[in-house]
Amino acid sequence: MDNNNLTYHITKTDRKKREEMLGQKAVTLWFTGLSGSGKSTVADALEQKLCEMGKHTMLLDGDNIRFGLNSDLGFSEADRVENIRRIAHVCKLLNDAGVIVLASFVSPYAADRQKAKEIIGETAFTEIYVSTPIEECERRDVKGLYKKARAGEIAHFTGISDPYEAPLSPDVAIDTSKLSLAECVERVLVSLK
Amino acid sequence: MDNNNLTYHITKTDRKKREEMLGQKAVTLWFTGLSGSGKSTVADALEQKLCEMGKHTMLLDGDNIRFGLNSDLGFSEADRVENIRRIAHVCKLLNDAGVIVLASFVSPYAADRQKAKEIIGETAFTEIYVSTPIEECERRDVKGLYKKARAGEIAHFTGISDPYEAPLSPDVAIDTSKLSLAECVERVLVSLK
Repeated sequence: MDNNNLTYHITKTDRKKREEMLGQKAVTLWFTGLSGSGKSTVADALEQKLCEMGKHTMLLDGDNIRFGLNSDLGFSEADRVENIRRIAHVCKLLNDAGVIVLASFVSPYAADRQKAKEIIGETAFTEIYVSTPIEECERRDVKGLYKKARAGEIAHFTGISDPYEAPLSPDVAIDTSKLSLAECVERVLVSLK
Repeated sequence: MDNNNLTYHITKTDRKKREEMLGQKAVTLWFTGLSGSGKSTVADALEQKLCEMGKHTMLLDGDNIRFGLNSDLGFSEADRVENIRRIAHVCKLLNDAGVIVLASFVSPYAADRQKAKEIIGETAFTEIYVSTPIEECERRDVKGLYKKARAGEIAHFTGISDPYEAPLSPDVAIDTSKLSLAECVERVLVSLK
């Protein structure tokens, strides 16, 4: 797009002011991991905890956002890239609004997570790798997706027919097959202090 | 997209809880009007006022959002439709986060504003028509865009080479060539009570 005719509009009420009003630092906690690894369960429990602490949060979820903003996108690699790009910009806008974001997405490609980090801003971005082994995720198979993927009924399924590039140096790593939910929440909380 | 493999995820911390925490109703104030009509000036001033009242707000602006989320979109009719669709979903997500949104966009097509209203939800959506006449907008020409449009240097310019479909029954109408900034802000505020 030709941006020559756009002027960046600086508003008087800014992120800093909004963070002050809410008494918090607006960050994005980005949960990455396989389907069934427990990302949303941990994110939900963490959000409850933050809420009890008086923090103001918003949870973005892969499944949820695809019904709305990204309902025009499928699961090809190009669409997954665009999916993450848009989500990262929404995280940024929510952070600009002073809100702490919990973003729970498979986000299998390291390059996309890196791009998300750049969009959101390095200091605001925390990468949480939910490292539950695929055997355990497949055993749980909460949504029956692994079964379908193994049967070839779902194409581009991360961990089966599409790769998952594990984070090499996440800010936090949690394996929900080894830690309790409370321990997982605590590890993320500690990383924020 | 095939949504058969998605499960709508219901989180424990919801919009109602977030609204309660912030002590406000999360609505979207949608400013529509020609370039130069004064949308962003009024939205800025209103946001300042709401901020003083302890309300928690976010301002979305046509120019701003096009640098980020919608940087892949141009100004063709199809892209303008997609531009407004995405923005409406961001408004909805911010409202779900409990935040009052001030959305300032030319949004020239009635059908797009209607779609935005449907996405955001009728009870949360307030349409504010900044009805400043085009002669006044062109006289101001803050960004020099009308001059360029008249010279044929900008295609698809609303009011010159593209239509602007004025709202038939906006919730509020304000003409910044007839009302002071304070009066404009007051009219919108009154509509919220």
